[in-house]
Amino acid sequence: MIGDPLPSERLEGQLLPKHLALPIFASDPLSSVAYAPQELLMILLLGGLSFLAFAPWVALAVVVLLVTVVLSYRQLVKAYPSGGGDYEVAHKNLGEKAGLVVASALLVDYVMTVVVSVASGVDNIISALPWLAPFRVELAVFFVIILAAVNLRGVSESSKAFAIPTYIFIGSVFLMIVVGLGQTFFGTAPVAESAAYTVQGEQLTQAAIVLLLLRSFASGCSALTGVEAIANGVPAFRLPKVRNAQHTLVIMGGIAITLFVGLTALALISNVHYAENPCSLQGWAECATAPQLSLMAQIAAAVFGNSTIMFFVIQAATALVLLLAANTAFNGFPLLGSVLAKDGYAPKSLSTRGDRLIYSNGVLLLGLAAVVILVVFQANLTVLIQLYIIGVFVSFTLGQTGMVRHWLRELKLPGAHRGSIVKSLSINALGAAMTGIVLIVVTITKFTHGAWIVFVMMPILFLLMMGVNRYYRDVAKEVEVDPTTTFGATGDHAIVLVGKVQKPVLKALDYAIAARHESLEAVHVSIDDEETKQVKKDWVRMNIQVPLRIIQSPYRDLSYPVIRHVKDRRAEHGSEVTTIYMPQYIVGHWWESLLHNHKARRIRQKLMLVHGVTIALVPWLLDSSDLLYGRRSRPLPGQDRRGEPVRPVPRAPMPPAIITTTTVAPPPAPPGASRPAASRRRKRK
Amino acid sequence: MIGDPLPSERLEGQLLPKHLALPIFASDPLSSVAYAPQELLMILLLGGLSFLAFAPWVALAVVVLLVTVVLSYRQLVKAYPSGGGDYEVAHKNLGEKAGLVVASALLVDYVMTVVVSVASGVDNIISALPWLAPFRVELAVFFVIILAAVNLRGVSESSKAFAIPTYIFIGSVFLMIVVGLGQTFFGTAPVAESAAYTVQGEQLTQAAIVLLLLRSFASGCSALTGVEAIANGVPAFRLPKVRNAQHTLVIMGGIAITLFVGLTALALISNVHYAENPCSLQGWAECATAPQLSLMAQIAAAVFGNSTIMFFVIQAATALVLLLAANTAFNGFPLLGSVLAKDGYAPKSLSTRGDRLIYSNGVLLLGLAAVVILVVFQANLTVLIQLYIIGVFVSFTLGQTGMVRHWLRELKLPGAHRGSIVKSLSINALGAAMTGIVLIVVTITKFTHGAWIVFVMMPILFLLMMGVNRYYRDVAKEVEVDPTTTFGATGDHAIVLVGKVQKPVLKALDYAIAARHESLEAVHVSIDDEETKQVKKDWVRMNIQVPLRIIQSPYRDLSYPVIRHVKDRRAEHGSEVTTIYMPQYIVGHWWESLLHNHKARRIRQKLMLVHGVTIALVPWLLDSSDLLYGRRSRPLPGQDRRGEPVRPVPRAPMPPAIITTTTVAPPPAPPGASRPAASRRRKRK
Repeated sequence: MIGDPLPSERLEGQLLPKHLALPIFASDPLSSVAYAPQELLMILLLGGLSFLAFAPWVALAVVVLLVTVVLSYRQLVKAYPSGGGDYEVAHKNLGEKAGLVVASALLVDYVMTVVVSVASGVDNIISALPWLAPFRVELAVFFVIILAAVNLRGVSESSKAFAIPTYIFIGSVFLMIVVGLGQTFFGTAPVAESAAYTVQGEQLTQAAIVLLLLRSFASGCSALTGVEAIANGVPAFRLPKVRNAQHTLVIMGGIAITLFVGLTALALISNVHYAENPCSLQGWAECATAPQLSLMAQIAAAVFGNSTIMFFVIQAATALVLLLAANTAFNGFPLLGSVLAKDGYAPKSLSTRGDRLIYSNGVLLLGLAAVVILVVFQANLTVLIQLYIIGVFVSFTLGQTGMVRHWLRELKLPGAHRGSIVKSLSINALGAAMTGIVLIVVTITKFTHGAWIVFVMMPILFLLMMGVNRYYRDVAKEVEVDPTTTFGATGDHAIVLVGKVQKPVLKALDYAIAARHESLEAVHVSIDDEETKQVKKDWVRMNIQVPLRIIQSPYRDLSYPVIRHVKDRRAEHGSEVTTIYMPQYIVGHWWESLLHNHKARRIRQKLMLVHGVTIALVPWLLDSSDLLYGRRSRPLPGQDRRGEPVRPVPRAPMPPAIITTTTVAPPPAPPGASRPAASRRRKRK
Repeated sequence: MIGDPLPSERLEGQLLPKHLALPIFASDPLSSVAYAPQELLMILLLGGLSFLAFAPWVALAVVVLLVTVVLSYRQLVKAYPSGGGDYEVAHKNLGEKAGLVVASALLVDYVMTVVVSVASGVDNIISALPWLAPFRVELAVFFVIILAAVNLRGVSESSKAFAIPTYIFIGSVFLMIVVGLGQTFFGTAPVAESAAYTVQGEQLTQAAIVLLLLRSFASGCSALTGVEAIANGVPAFRLPKVRNAQHTLVIMGGIAITLFVGLTALALISNVHYAENPCSLQGWAECATAPQLSLMAQIAAAVFGNSTIMFFVIQAATALVLLLAANTAFNGFPLLGSVLAKDGYAPKSLSTRGDRLIYSNGVLLLGLAAVVILVVFQANLTVLIQLYIIGVFVSFTLGQTGMVRHWLRELKLPGAHRGSIVKSLSINALGAAMTGIVLIVVTITKFTHGAWIVFVMMPILFLLMMGVNRYYRDVAKEVEVDPTTTFGATGDHAIVLVGKVQKPVLKALDYAIAARHESLEAVHVSIDDEETKQVKKDWVRMNIQVPLRIIQSPYRDLSYPVIRHVKDRRAEHGSEVTTIYMPQYIVGHWWESLLHNHKARRIRQKLMLVHGVTIALVPWLLDSSDLLYGRRSRPLPGQDRRGEPVRPVPRAPMPPAIITTTTVAPPPAPPGASRPAASRRRKRK
């Protein structure tokens, strides 16, 4: 009838096979190996070259933690396959407050994922093309804008173009590790550019040494960021969802550990000396002018040689996978938003599928926050990582603690498989304990280094979500049907608002006639004599059989005379229902809506405040509205992760309609009480 | 009935008496004497100290020009008292294109008025409090934000608080001039701080000398900015409007000339040496670190002494009057917008009185543009003035040329008073010639100094306005009634969309029953079994006598099943009109609208694309909507300048309603053609 109204419903739905799910969900956790070893070693180097001897042990601790967390999430995926992740677990097992703490931590995380990934990506680009060094912040902002633009436009994450860079990254870094270790084995170990630089170690107290090791460990823990992504994306997997998600999680964990260990080992073998303050590197003359090459770049240059094709492949793949990781935040945010909205902690609109306006706002907000943070912190990766890890470990710890509570409850159920539950319980308990300890360590070691900002942001988000929830609860109470609600509106008057006699108005008039109201009149508010004369002329010329009432508005207000008229009628005829017909333009371009309907909207808003009024919008489709049909098929951010793609609806037969008809007589209403009580209450005010 | 619906209509309307009109309209032109003498002398100083001897002659040229322009505008006010100003004159006499050139020049001007006034204001604040010098840009941005916030909140320009600073400025600067000249007369001439500094004059060719004099003249012409303000505000004056406006214009011109001449004279007497590059001043040691004091501050310090009360009074008054001048742009912009909208060159919404949303957008846009320019040019007054004068003189020249055309046409009318017309004609011709020459001079001397940006912005604005105009023309054509338009819709089915059984839905149902449609059903789209069960239970429990149809939506889409249902009915029953009732929440806080109606809006937008559908919005006023009533009385930017304040509407008796009832039989419609032709056309596509 109206062409192709909803092509989006015809989109072939597709769930993700493992070979696509891995790159989509793993770009975030895997990309973190691009910065984790570098930050780990950098902190150690603060104590002097000799402290690098601790590196294997610190790295081992990170790996143990990573294994624990991966195993913990394997349990979580099984117990909560709905994709709510840590938020759902904490909410269901530890209560509303814990859930909201996790939610605010995750919201901060999404911003930081964008920020850290982009900053690290830019670092690696600059390492390959050092002449870009003066434009670090500009480049970072540019990439955030590009990401936001791509997500505003709409692009499907499940396309192959998104999978290839991750595989290239994994493959090329793995190759680099194998070649580097091979060279070492055959006696020609790679030597990093910075191998010759030394660092003046400070005299540290024992406490300071312990603190330094803990700080180094905390920075290394940035390797764990993003592990939770798969737990949030279970619904997107093909059947059997849980098995496939668990399998992918383990593969991802294996790859992450291999790359992390391999890169750390190669960095130690090739003597990469990466310093927080480049000019603390003794022997490096241009420390103030030249950019310090990233650990990834130094290893790649040491193994494959500077300016070789492989060097650039590694750098390009690293930068790309980091940008993809940033992109995941743009996809994950709407997903978390919809979960929160379903629970009533975020605007309900976030759970409305396909409202591009809502998604656009989310994308813009995320992009803006990321740009502000990047500019404020000058895209300095080391500082930004401090902000990142806190949020991650808050959600880890609360999620795992929630799982412990979950298993304890399961254990009490009759007929529980005690053996497997106890195993799961102990894994999650270990996970909770370890991530909890790391959270404490991270908080202590990072707080003064900028992490306090996170502790300011999280409570704000927390309170916002609580506020939204309380608001919805109050409104639900307000609109709840109560015993005093009575009905029985009477009277049926209709008004068609006439500005100029144009097709949209005539259509509204036509529909009003078809609705056969008790009484019908056309109302023209006269603010311009010429226009009014023309309306009268048209009315007579076109033989329109609806009475036209012209109301003079000496003060040029359009809505007040109509309001006055409606009220006068109600004063005369009792509390009748008045339907006011207004044409509404439907347009195809966003900018057209800047040019239409504003006057109508304003009048509508005022008329809606009048008692007994209902507004009938009669749509008029301008030619440009044809464009609306083609546009809907653009994918929305997070669509692939939701795992419930819009599937083709069979056009016939329709799902059977259940019709319940109750034909009992209406409740007796007292003669005077023709308005619902809730409305009458207002009257008395 | 609903309390106090429209208190804004009760606002006591008041037109401006002259003693209030002067400060409101004159803060812009008078404040420009705060920077014009300084910029004039500064350019001369580029040639060396000896060039200051030219200053009286250059200043004289500026005064002559100012007199001419004031007299020219006296004519314009008389001929076009409607407040359209240069735009209206150019549009009516020189055609659409010239009008739009003026309009784009004026739009650029509003931004530059904010920018230049704020930059100069900050300059004078820093001159009084030099420790603020490092925060020049931050201060400027801060003031723009304050101005935007004040105008977003709404404040009446006609309040006395706006008038006082201008009078203090005029009074204190006048006092300073009298005291300074008195001191000179009695032999104790003031000596400026910078009197001792000398400048190394360059060896200039004769052409370069002429160019320098012209540049100095062009910079001095910044004294003329804002003179047009009164011509745009005639409707705001008390009766007799034209006489009062002309009188105010002449007073304003007299004050401006007095202050300009006085300040220039005192600057020459006290040997103020203000340099474009402070370090070209020989003998000033701290040129790189200390801020250069503004000419106003140097004179005030020379006449009254440094750190005296009068010094601070002068600086404070200067800064305040400059900020007021910036504020005028925020008030003038909506006014120009409404004139442009009335002519169809700007979105019609700009002409809708009282749409706060529209004003907010305008205020934000203006503020944002000003901030960007201030940041990009680091609030450097000298550079910014280059951008300012171009736009001003474009509108001056075209406005005056339009007036020449106007008088030439008047001259040809029978019975014209030739004498007075020829006098007016010669004044405007002189004005047009002089401002035209200045425009050429300014363009030549300023183009490479940044004025080219104006020549980029103006065409963009020009094309935007042309585009808007063409768009409206096309749409008007599209919706024009043509002979093929036929009517005669039939059928009258109504659907009430039911989500949860809550009061708003029950009210919608009640209204739908009252409208007595041919057939009525309630439709619930089931996406959640629990919810559906509850709806059914409520339906039975409450004995609702409307049949309830439940449509399963396995893919969780809310609108598609309804669309399908409507189409199926139309396939069965022919092209009936379907009214779909939806409750609409009315809320009191802006943020509440983020939490409501989104799902409904989306469904509505989709349903409106279906043929034969009209949407009946049944408002539900949440308790917070009470707030809507108190809020309307906040004044809008530009309200005082419009001169047509919202006046109290007599509540009774109403203006008499003219009722025209045509009872001729409806035009015979062919049996099948029940839809307007325009709608049917779409069907065929």
